[in-house]
This record gives sequence, C-alpha cells and structure tokens, in this order.
Amino acid sequence: MTKPLKIAIAGLGTVGGGIVKMVQKHGALLEKRAGKAIEITAVSARSRGKDRGVDLSGYAWEDNPVALSQRDDVDLVIEVMGGEDGPAKACVETALQNGKHVVTANKAMLALHGQSMAEMAENSGVALRYEAAVAGGIPIVKALTEGLAGNGITRVMGVMNGTCNYILTEMERTGAAYADVLKDAQALGYAEADPSVDVGGIDAAHKLSLLSSVAFGTKVDFASVQIEGIERVSLADIKNARDMGFSIKLLGVSRMNADGLEQRMQPCLVPANSPLGQLDGVSNMVVVDGDFIGQTVYQGPGAGEGPTASAILGDVMDIARGLVIPVFGQPAAGLSNSEASRAGSDAAYYLRFSLQDQAGVLATLATILGNFGVSINRMHQYSHGGQSAPLVIVTHATSRTALDQALAEISALPASLAAPIALRIETL
Amino acid sequence: MTKPLKIAIAGLGTVGGGIVKMVQKHGALLEKRAGKAIEITAVSARSRGKDRGVDLSGYAWEDNPVALSQRDDVDLVIEVMGGEDGPAKACVETALQNGKHVVTANKAMLALHGQSMAEMAENSGVALRYEAAVAGGIPIVKALTEGLAGNGITRVMGVMNGTCNYILTEMERTGAAYADVLKDAQALGYAEADPSVDVGGIDAAHKLSLLSSVAFGTKVDFASVQIEGIERVSLADIKNARDMGFSIKLLGVSRMNADGLEQRMQPCLVPANSPLGQLDGVSNMVVVDGDFIGQTVYQGPGAGEGPTASAILGDVMDIARGLVIPVFGQPAAGLSNSEASRAGSDAAYYLRFSLQDQAGVLATLATILGNFGVSINRMHQYSHGGQSAPLVIVTHATSRTALDQALAEISALPASLAAPIALRIETL
Repeated sequence: MTKPLKIAIAGLGTVGGGIVKMVQKHGALLEKRAGKAIEITAVSARSRGKDRGVDLSGYAWEDNPVALSQRDDVDLVIEVMGGEDGPAKACVETALQNGKHVVTANKAMLALHGQSMAEMAENSGVALRYEAAVAGGIPIVKALTEGLAGNGITRVMGVMNGTCNYILTEMERTGAAYADVLKDAQALGYAEADPSVDVGGIDAAHKLSLLSSVAFGTKVDFASVQIEGIERVSLADIKNARDMGFSIKLLGVSRMNADGLEQRMQPCLVPANSPLGQLDGVSNMVVVDGDFIGQTVYQGPGAGEGPTASAILGDVMDIARGLVIPVFGQPAAGLSNSEASRAGSDAAYYLRFSLQDQAGVLATLATILGNFGVSINRMHQYSHGGQSAPLVIVTHATSRTALDQALAEISALPASLAAPIALRIETL
Repeated sequence: MTKPLKIAIAGLGTVGGGIVKMVQKHGALLEKRAGKAIEITAVSARSRGKDRGVDLSGYAWEDNPVALSQRDDVDLVIEVMGGEDGPAKACVETALQNGKHVVTANKAMLALHGQSMAEMAENSGVALRYEAAVAGGIPIVKALTEGLAGNGITRVMGVMNGTCNYILTEMERTGAAYADVLKDAQALGYAEADPSVDVGGIDAAHKLSLLSSVAFGTKVDFASVQIEGIERVSLADIKNARDMGFSIKLLGVSRMNADGLEQRMQPCLVPANSPLGQLDGVSNMVVVDGDFIGQTVYQGPGAGEGPTASAILGDVMDIARGLVIPVFGQPAAGLSNSEASRAGSDAAYYLRFSLQDQAGVLATLATILGNFGVSINRMHQYSHGGQSAPLVIVTHATSRTALDQALAEISALPASLAAPIALRIETL
C-alpha cells in the first residue's frame, strides 16, 4: 500500500468535529477509494480541554494553528476556523509556503485573498481546495472546474444562503413578517445572533465571487459584487409576486457581458414553478448554463456538520488520489482582470410604488417610465382604503440604468409617499 | 508547455460530431484549463465520404476503429459508436490493452462488460471513463466517485431516460394515451423507431447498474436489475396518482439491504411536489443519499449532441490533468459480488383492481390483503357505469413478496376482471 496522506485539522467546532467523525467512521472505505489511508496526525483549536464528543487522543495537539502548517508529519491542512484574516490566513499561507495542500471552508478569506493564495499554492505545486466554502455539501466547484470543463460557461446563478432562503420561504408559507421569521430562525439555530452577514447578502456574495472566478477565468473580485440583502423584502412583495406566478429568492447571478463581468446578489423574482422557485427551506441550489451542455441544476444542504464535512472530505480524497489542478480551474497568474459590468444585462423588473391617490398621478408615472424607455408589461393597482395607492408594475426587459433614472424622477414627485421597490425578474 | 494529449474519436454520429465541434471551438480554453492542448489526431466512422458539417481534414482517417487503438499518435480513444459488442468492444479493449485511456458513452457495453474492462484498464494503469453513459450531461459519476467520496452512500435513484419521462409527462399534461404520445415522441425524434430499449426500461437499467457499482462498491450486475417498462402505465393510473398528490415516473432505485443489493427500474409514484415529481420533459435527475451529506439532487439534459459531448470532454479534461482513478471508484479487483436482494425494501404501493361489481367482493379482497399482512392506508372506488368496478388502494409499507402473494390470490378470484396494477411509492 502507498504511504498514507497525513492531514491536520485547524478548528474543532461543528465542522472540524464532523471531519474527525467521518475519517474515524469511514477509514477503511476511504483507503479503498483513495488507494491510500487518510490519517489525521494533528489538530488545533482554541480550547484543549473542551469535550467535543470525539476521541482526539491519537492526534498531536497544537495550540497555535500555524504550528500545524509547519509540522513534518502533515501533508495537508484543513482550515475550518473561519475569519477572513488572523490565524486562519496565517495558517493557510504558512501551509502553502511549506508545500502542504490546503482544504478550507473559509469563503470570506478566499473572497478577499483568493488570488494571492491561489498563486502561492500554484507556485508551491500544491492544491488549495474549497468545495465546502461555496454551497455546503453540493459538489458545485467540482462540477464547474471539472465536469463542465469543456464548456464555455454563460451564466452561473443560485441560492447560496440557507438562512435567507429559510426566512423567505417561511414568510411566504406562514404570512409572518420578516422580523418575526428572523427571530424564529435564530431560535432554531438557522440564523446567527448577529444575522447581518447572512441576511445582508454578504455571505452569499462571498460564495458567488468564487464561482464567478471559476466560471469565467477572472480574478476573484468580491468588491464588485452588487449586494442587496433581504431586509427590505416585504410580505406585500412576496404576495404580489406569488399572485403573478413568481417566488422571491436571494439570488446570485454571474454573467460575462460585453462591457465586463456582472455579479449580483440580490432579491429577485423567479418563476414559482422553476427549480429555483420551488427551493424550500435551508437548501441551496446552483444553476449553471454552458454553451454545449445547456442547463444543469445542483441542489443540496447548504450548511451543517455532515454536508460541510462531506465537501471537505471530497477535496481531501481528490488530493489523496493525486489530483492537483489550478485553484480556480486555470492558472491563477493567467486569470483576467475583468472590468465590472456597469450596465449589467437587461431584465424585466417588478416595481412597487406608494403614491398619493390623486388624479393624474398614474399618468405622470407612466409618462416618466416611457421617457426613459421603460415599457410596461403588466400593471395592478390594489384596492386601498387610505390615501396611499399601492401600484405594482412589471416592466418589459429594460436597462437598470434607465430604470434607476426613471425611479429617481418618480421618487422626487410630491405624490410619492415612499421610495419605490424594484426587484429584478431573472429568466431561467 | 507540456505535450498535448492526443485523442482519437471512434464514431462520428451526432455525438462524435459534437466532440469535434467542442474541441475546435474551445481549443485555447481547454489548453488553459488542462495545462496542455487537447489534440484530435485520428477519427474513424463507417462512411468516409459523408458530410458531417465539421472539418475533419486535419485528422488521420481509419476505416477500422480498432486501428485507432493501435496508433502510436493516440493517447486516448473516445468510443461513441455504440453497440454492446462488436467493433465498439474490440476498439475499447484494444485501446486498454495498448495502454491508452478510454472515454465512452456506451452504457450497454459497460453494463455487460464493465467489470472485465475495468480490470483491463486498471492493469494497464489507464483511465476508463463513462460520464456520458449515465445521465447525459449531468456530472453524476463524478459527483459520486469524487465529490461524495467521503460518504457511505445509502441510496441512489433517478429518472435516467428522457424518452420515458417525456412520454409520461405528456400523458399527464395532455390526457393523451400512451400509444399516441409515443407516436408524437417518435415524430419529434425523442423516441427511436423501435422504442423498446427506452420504454421497456432497458436503457435506464443499464445506467442504473453502473451507478450501483459506483455507489456500493459492487461488481456491475445488470442481470439482477428488476426491470419494468412504462408500456402498461395507463392514463387512469396517472390521473389517480395525481389526485392523491403523486406523479408517475420511470424511476431507478438502488439500495443496499441486509440481504443484498436492490436494483429496480420501474414506474413508481413519487410526491408530485418533490424535485423528481416536478421533473418535466426529456430532462434527467439523479438523487443521492449519503450518510454525512444527506440528500443532493442533480438535474440536466439526459441526451443530445451538446450534453453528451460535454460529458465526454469533462472526462477527457480529467485525464489531461492526470487524474486516473479506479473505474468504479475503487479497485475493480476488490469490488464485491453482492447477492441481489430478494426481499427488497418495504414500501407503500398503489394498487388498482378491476373487479366485478357484486356484493361481497370488496370484503373478500380486503380479507386476502389482511391475511398477507398488507394493510390499507387509503381506498377509493370510482363511480362506474358498467359491471367493472375500478378500485384504487394505497397500502401502508409492505413487503413486495407478501403483496405479490396477495395479488396472485386476488387475481384468481372469479370476480377479478384483469390483472391488478401494483406501483411502488418511493419515499424521498
């Protein structure tokens, strides 16, 4: 038998513990599949004494995760501490510089430092893998970089934050308001005490920026992702969308336009009867369009101990089998510095206005939209008691730039009672 | 730059032509991604003169596909001729014996000869890959053998024949009978002139037998797949199922039971609001349950020039990058000779009886079911004019053996007008 692959785990929280369980449970199976044993040699975490429900007695302990990356008896370091800088970054960089493979679940770190880390890994001839950082257990990085490697990718999109999808699904199912559902989600452990990274779209945008790089051969450019969270999605919008056959999802979309790379993470309307529209609860889903393959869809658990450990182990197994490919699917040094697409792609939009109920307002609004070339596909004025007339419009495909100009002008009308809501309708 | 990977294509039908187009269109991209050029050096097909809409002038021509496998300027042979024996088998075996990698879309060949070919490949230290043979463009073999390689797989199931799914979907959508929809499907090119391999479940069973091997580490055992086609699915059954919240799909299920490997390819009821229940048209879908990851779902085009070429190129790219793993995910010599599960797993069943409308028949039937321990969950007797009373029963989970005994006894009743229909309800 070949020499074992010796691995170290930095971070023994839920995910780190899951990895230990998986290696301990499936040792013989992993060895058969990889052609060599996967052997945990050392671990590191903040508190050594804590009971984690797994037997760590056979592994060396390091208080400092960076020390794992310097051990002679370690071939591969798994980083599951989290944190975009600090110890996680130091641990990963030290490992790469010392010629050790790295597998990480750290989306924030890679969204910020992915390019430099990829260059480091490729210079050292080692693998840097991050399946668990993108869509939990779903092997989507693998599908894009390997399974679909013969295709030109035309679009990647998906629901990549289970917390947001749970909240939106529950709002639609129960008719409860955003704040109430968020509170429930926190009680159930689906949302953090400080939920802003999730509901603000940041976490999902980190993931999207990695997928963009893989899909389009561009340097990771998190700063250019247009991010909008779900905090402003109202029950009224969810209900109106449903009436017209749509669901609202926090949807990431990445696409290469003539003027550059478009990356958006924002609440969108998608057809309610599409796979994305039907995605309930904390699941994730990624939809990939390729020029030869057409459309493929990948669905699975987006987080949690087992799914994340599964994604990590998948990467470890590849490395054990000798697969070392460029971090983003082609050499990091050759990734392009794409401009961010200013115009973005045209789309139809769902618009909701709160207007004073007075003669002539509708005509003024329609005129302004028309002046900017925004044409109306459907319109519905809801019956109302007070002086505010809720008006919903679905446009034909339009440029966002023109739409924003029109909306600014409408906002400035004396009859406008609140800023208009504009949600993109993504076609499938 | 590294030396190119020199490939040969045996078979220049739709798929072979698609591969040529893909390599010609994406040459530079493939080279960047693989770290070496992918170079077609030779091709073979039945008729040299035929216009295939692609420029073949740069490639050597062989009339005999076996000759491709003997050329010194070929590292990898793509077999897309089809046919489970004859030239396809000779071409593949010669390539493997000559130390050349093989990529094939030939499910029938692998279902019958997969074990011996895998041993040949592994003895020669080359890859034998077949992503295109299983679910068209969906990278499901890759997901199972690599992405989920850390998991114990507990079930693999899916819709793996687009023709059947198209027919069942159209029957449900239009209310047209099986024979009429089949005729339309043939006119549209979705079904062959002789559709028996598709509608009889054979094609999908070939695919399932390969997935079983990958999932459970067993030798490919096509002969043990329990196969039932869709020819007997009636509009009445589709309508009854829909009324109860189910769709009927030709579903492949593979699962390891205490008494052996269960492999079934048969029309089943699945919840209409599940991903499988919502799968329309010619798409394929595979659902995988793993002990750590939970459930993941993979959906995409199950056939056609582009999707099949995409799957082939994905395999070629892996080989170009140096990935050579065991054919079924672990060494062929160590794959187990699992017994076929006789009992199978218990399940609820949809039953439809045609009985003479006379006093006491229902009591007799219920008694027989009860005698064999088959308990009734739901029952519906449809209003009827003639003397035949259509009776639909949904059972609680029961063993198929007991059910078959009960049905045999009921069939033998003088009041039984036709053989009962029994369709398994697969839980998700």
